[in-house]
Amino acid sequence: MRIGQGFDAHRFADERDPRPLMLATLAWSGNGIEGDSDGDVVVHAMIDALLSAAHLGDIGTLFGVGESSQGAGMSGTAMLTRTMEHLHDHRCDPCSIAVCVIGNRPKLGPRRAQAEAQLSAICGCQVSLTATTTDGMGFTGRGEGIAATATALVEVR
Amino acid sequence: MRIGQGFDAHRFADERDPRPLMLATLAWSGNGIEGDSDGDVVVHAMIDALLSAAHLGDIGTLFGVGESSQGAGMSGTAMLTRTMEHLHDHRCDPCSIAVCVIGNRPKLGPRRAQAEAQLSAICGCQVSLTATTTDGMGFTGRGEGIAATATALVEVR
Amino acid sequence: MRIGQGFDAHRFADERDPRPLMLATLAWSGNGIEGDSDGDVVVHAMIDALLSAAHLGDIGTLFGVGESSQGAGMSGTAMLTRTMEHLHDHRCDPCSIAVCVIGNRPKLGPRRAQAEAQLSAICGCQVSLTATTTDGMGFTGRGEGIAATATALVEVR
Repeated sequence: MRIGQGFDAHRFADERDPRPLMLATLAWSGNGIEGDSDGDVVVHAMIDALLSAAHLGDIGTLFGVGESSQGAGMSGTAMLTRTMEHLHDHRCDPCSIAVCVIGNRPKLGPRRAQAEAQLSAICGCQVSLTATTTDGMGFTGRGEGIAATATALVEVR
Repeated sequence: MRIGQGFDAHRFADERDPRPLMLATLAWSGNGIEGDSDGDVVVHAMIDALLSAAHLGDIGTLFGVGESSQGAGMSGTAMLTRTMEHLHDHRCDPCSIAVCVIGNRPKLGPRRAQAEAQLSAICGCQVSLTATTTDGMGFTGRGEGIAATATALVEVR
Repeated sequence: MRIGQGFDAHRFADERDPRPLMLATLAWSGNGIEGDSDGDVVVHAMIDALLSAAHLGDIGTLFGVGESSQGAGMSGTAMLTRTMEHLHDHRCDPCSIAVCVIGNRPKLGPRRAQAEAQLSAICGCQVSLTATTTDGMGFTGRGEGIAATATALVEVR
C-alpha cells in the first residue's frame, strides 16, 4: 500500500470568456479557467496523487509540460482515463482517493454525488470530494482562482 | 482502509473582540476567530477528512451551510463528537488522523500533548498535531487568519 | 499503519545572496532560501509528516525552535537522517512518503529521479516527488517563496 498526493491551482478566466468551468469532469455554470487545458484542478490534483503513489513522476512526466504538453487539448476525463491505463500498465491499482476543492465557486454540494460517481467509475475505486473556502483570504478567497489537493492510496500487484 | 482529507481556513477577529481563540478543542490566549461557529479550523479540517474517508460528503453535508447551518452555535468538541456518531452509524472507524496547523499563532508546542489527548479521546484513535508558519508570506504569514489541513485513515466494518 | 502529514514554506533569499538553493537534499541553480537552516522545504515537510505519523510531535519538538534550534546549522540530509534514527528508536518504520513541491522554481523534473533516490535511501522506503505551480497566484505564484506538503505512512513494530 503506497500513498501519493497532488496539488493544483488554476486562475479563473475573464468573465467575458465563454468557456465552461470544468471541475471533477463536470461542466459548471460561471466563467471557466484560463489556459490551454480545460483546467480541471480536481482531475489534475488526482493525477498527481495517483502517479506519486505509483512512483511514476507527475502530470508533467506523463503529458509533458509547456509547448510539448500533450494534455493541452485533452479533457479531464481523457487525461484521467489515460492515467489509469498507465497505472494498470505498471500493475498499480488505486484503493481510495480523496480530493479537497478550495475556492469560492462553484457550489459543489448539489452535484457532489454525480461528480464522485463519475470519478469513481473512471478510477475503479471510491473517490470522495470535499469543498471549502478561505473566508475571503488568499488567492482563492479573492476569487482569483481555484485550488485542489488530492491524496491517494495505491496497491502494487 | 480508506483515506480522506480536509482543509479549512478562518480569519482572525478584530483584537477588540473578546472571544477566545478555540483550536483543537482548547481555548488559547489572543483574539479569536470571526464568524458564527467557534472557528476551530483543526476540528473543521478533521471533520472533512473523516467524512471524506467515510464517503459521507463534507462538513456542509452534515451540519448545513450558511443560514441553515446547525454548526453555527456548536463547539468544536460537540461537532467532532456528532461526526464520530455519524461515522459509527455508517460502520466506519478512524484508525489514524494527522492535522497540520498553518499560522503565526498560537504556539501549539507547549499544549500539543493536551490537544492531541483530547482529540484522540473523542475520535477513539491516535490524532497527531503539527504546526508551521509560512515565513511571513500569504494570508497566514500576514496574520490575517489560520489554516489547517487534515488526513485520516478510516476502516469500514 | 499510521498516517502523518507536514507542510513547510520558505522565502527565497535576495538574488545577490550567493547561497545555493537546497531542495530534496540537492543543490539547484538560482538563489537560495532565507534563514539559518538550508531551508529545504521538501525535507522539512517530510520530517513533520514522519514525526506526525509516529506521534512524536513535529520538527520543533525534535530540533527546537527559534534561538534554541539545533537544526539551524544542519543540512536537510543531516536533519532527515537524525529524524529516521529517532523514528527507529521508537520502533517506527516508514512505508511510503509523498511530497508535493509548490513553486515556480527550480524545475524538478530533470532531477526528480536523483532526488527521489537520495530521499528513499535515507528513509528506507519509497519517496515520491511531484511539483506544481499556482498560475502566478499567491506567494508561490509571485515567486516570493516555495512550499511543500508531505504525507507519510508509518508502521509501528
